[in-house]
Amino acid sequence: MKTIVEQLDPIFKPESIAVIGASKNPAKWGFRMINRPIRCGYRGPIYPVNPREDKFNNLPFYRSVLDIPGSVDLAVITVPAAQVPGVIRECVSKGVKGAVLITAGFAEVGHDGKVLEDEVVAIAREGGLRFVGPNGMGIWSAAGMLNLSFDQVPLSGPIAFVSQSGTFGGSLAEIAGIKGYGLSKFISIGNQADLTAADYLEYLADDNDTRVIVFYMEGFKDGARFADLAREIVRKKPIIIFKAGRTGPGSRATQSHTASLAGSDEIFDAICRQAGLIRTQEALHSFDMAEALACQPIPRGRRVAILGSGGQGVVTADACAALGLEVPELDGDTVKSLKEVIPPHAPPPRNPVDFAGTLRSSMEEAAVVEKLLSRDYIDGVISNAPINPAAFAAMFGIAGMPKPLLDMTKSAIEGADYFSSLPTKYGKPIITIRFRRFAHDMVIDILRGAGIPVYDTPEECARAMFALARYAEIKRKARS
Amino acid sequence: MKTIVEQLDPIFKPESIAVIGASKNPAKWGFRMINRPIRCGYRGPIYPVNPREDKFNNLPFYRSVLDIPGSVDLAVITVPAAQVPGVIRECVSKGVKGAVLITAGFAEVGHDGKVLEDEVVAIAREGGLRFVGPNGMGIWSAAGMLNLSFDQVPLSGPIAFVSQSGTFGGSLAEIAGIKGYGLSKFISIGNQADLTAADYLEYLADDNDTRVIVFYMEGFKDGARFADLAREIVRKKPIIIFKAGRTGPGSRATQSHTASLAGSDEIFDAICRQAGLIRTQEALHSFDMAEALACQPIPRGRRVAILGSGGQGVVTADACAALGLEVPELDGDTVKSLKEVIPPHAPPPRNPVDFAGTLRSSMEEAAVVEKLLSRDYIDGVISNAPINPAAFAAMFGIAGMPKPLLDMTKSAIEGADYFSSLPTKYGKPIITIRFRRFAHDMVIDILRGAGIPVYDTPEECARAMFALARYAEIKRKARS
Repeated sequence: MKTIVEQLDPIFKPESIAVIGASKNPAKWGFRMINRPIRCGYRGPIYPVNPREDKFNNLPFYRSVLDIPGSVDLAVITVPAAQVPGVIRECVSKGVKGAVLITAGFAEVGHDGKVLEDEVVAIAREGGLRFVGPNGMGIWSAAGMLNLSFDQVPLSGPIAFVSQSGTFGGSLAEIAGIKGYGLSKFISIGNQADLTAADYLEYLADDNDTRVIVFYMEGFKDGARFADLAREIVRKKPIIIFKAGRTGPGSRATQSHTASLAGSDEIFDAICRQAGLIRTQEALHSFDMAEALACQPIPRGRRVAILGSGGQGVVTADACAALGLEVPELDGDTVKSLKEVIPPHAPPPRNPVDFAGTLRSSMEEAAVVEKLLSRDYIDGVISNAPINPAAFAAMFGIAGMPKPLLDMTKSAIEGADYFSSLPTKYGKPIITIRFRRFAHDMVIDILRGAGIPVYDTPEECARAMFALARYAEIKRKARS
Repeated sequence: MKTIVEQLDPIFKPESIAVIGASKNPAKWGFRMINRPIRCGYRGPIYPVNPREDKFNNLPFYRSVLDIPGSVDLAVITVPAAQVPGVIRECVSKGVKGAVLITAGFAEVGHDGKVLEDEVVAIAREGGLRFVGPNGMGIWSAAGMLNLSFDQVPLSGPIAFVSQSGTFGGSLAEIAGIKGYGLSKFISIGNQADLTAADYLEYLADDNDTRVIVFYMEGFKDGARFADLAREIVRKKPIIIFKAGRTGPGSRATQSHTASLAGSDEIFDAICRQAGLIRTQEALHSFDMAEALACQPIPRGRRVAILGSGGQGVVTADACAALGLEVPELDGDTVKSLKEVIPPHAPPPRNPVDFAGTLRSSMEEAAVVEKLLSRDYIDGVISNAPINPAAFAAMFGIAGMPKPLLDMTKSAIEGADYFSSLPTKYGKPIITIRFRRFAHDMVIDILRGAGIPVYDTPEECARAMFALARYAEIKRKARS
């Protein structure tokens, strides 16, 4: 019996792929499934299969997968549903190790489709071929340099995203990329006829490229196994889940979408708590949270210090408190220590520390963050990112770089370096927010390069810190 | 006694401005306050005032506002706090009509600052000079082509944004711009020493460039007057408010930020309900909601039809239901009527209508939207925006434009036009979501140009529809 890694590696790191149903018509899936891997860096041989076509650019078409001269790890299948059983039989004969079934028209369309789906599963099981789908939108694997899902290669990173919705999931993945979050894998799981959410979870648990696993789910085929696996896996990796179909109208809609019974939302919530899953209320929140979980230390508790200008600090404090995080008052010692950094005319520091117009450099700002992080009663810090005036100068078309701006820019870079050193030094997380106007990409790049997440809103920061605190509690519970 | 329009027009549509405390040092506010209007299109004369400087590019500096040869509508003041009373006295002598006080160090720093602030108010009141601030970050006025707040000119549009936090407010305004929302005015109100939130509300009520008024507030100086005014103004314009300081830690922070007493959150909530204010839970939500309120018809009720692909429809239905919107089942007549458009093999339509892989063109999609919108029991539609494959072709570097993509692109443009005609025809709102990957800017531009809002997530769509339905209720209540 092969391990899950042995079974799924040929799908996510294939040495060769066949696209069965490949097409030269750009409006068809058979076109995308061959054009995307070609254009997005896949390194192994790609074999287009279609008896009615001759050449795709320089690649010759094969009449059947059986005609391909070399071995095939992965078959990507876009032929009409009725032809899929025959194609899978041929794949088994050829010794293909795995498949991605794009084709729709199976269990999601009703009884006849379900019968056809069961037939495909039976053929594949007997032939030892595992498959993704059907009725999915493909996969992306950074390790395999294999893109079947996106029109542009996404950012690579430590977040695996498993989605029961292909189109919507792909859209979420793309927005995540625009926000700067990188993916290790994207899996559009479709009808889960063979491989299920639990199988992907088991596989990703051992995937070294994946530090956080994000699920978009409507309903489970094997919920009990998923929960059992999750309970173990959260000891080493956080699992975030967004569940659609949580209301009456939403639940009704999952039935026609993925033939899923959404089930009671209260029961699902209880399962999440027991299994140690972090559940999110909006689909995109999953990625904001995953970004922090992928790169920041886990805090000891829920006590947050906030450093920020005016309204940003107020709103961050509100957002933290609303999520059940604590924003403790500073003690006399901390106040005294902060006063060494803050100019004499500044108001006495409180939490949130409002530095508006008082800190003279990003180095001072980083020093304040360190002083907060060093306190026993502070478990993590949310701060604004160092301000870099270079962008400001560029926007105003200031010729050359006047001395005061040059000094501020130097300070911003030093500040970003200083910031970046602190989470490791204290074993506590730092979450940052950028003021876009002044936050030049160079500073943001330094922070992100060092694993400090950078967000656009106070609420995103608070949710990220909440996720870290929640995961700390999940890990503690799992150990006990 | 001058009307509020006569008092504030010289501030927001000044024919000439003096910048008192102007500076050639790019790190100083005195630099920004002169450089921003120069670079961002202000058309009238700009007079820099600073006895220690000579020239700013080609503009000569004046020693005092009294030395300026022409008349001055607006004084922008960045001198240190202690000098402000003298400067205001000179402005009054000069006949300056309004001022924007950037300078900090007044009531927000404690008792002495409060005394100084009161002195400034007394001088201004006696001289008939109204002012914004102090301790603010300036204003932006599209009508006045006057930018004192941003490093880049924001998008112009129908949303006025009044913010008690300058830096954070400016950051929000900038993100709103990135999301495609345009502003008529931005006002960083600072300490509200003279002009208060209620004054701006009164002014904006009569501002033809403003269709929706958005507030970020921490605490009110004249809450009762604000609520009285709001109760009247919501008859003609929606007012959206985000209130910071709603939790213990947040409320504590407002005191040091803007010397505001945040007050009880429950009481504030009750005031919002009574006055007809739409309150938002996250600062950025205000702008998503404002965008729809600025351009879409007000629905008769809360009954929403959803057209969308798979998971997007499910999540939209969930988000609507969670906000108290209804997602009614379709009746037999509607189902029959939709079947005329949907291909025969598609599953029977429900609400949400899942068209995944079944609609052959954006024209068909728009036809489905029309059929839904025409029903008595549907008050508005949330739909995905027409898909334009042009971007897809461009990304894949497809040479020329193959016939199938050309047809789809033509259909997308026709579909966008068709969509755009529907809200007026039926007097009901349409809210759209884009799948970034396929949604080319051309289609989005057509929709937005016609006042159809386009969002990135199902939750944003649901909140926008909720705001429309809520405002309809507010208007009904105000009339009765």
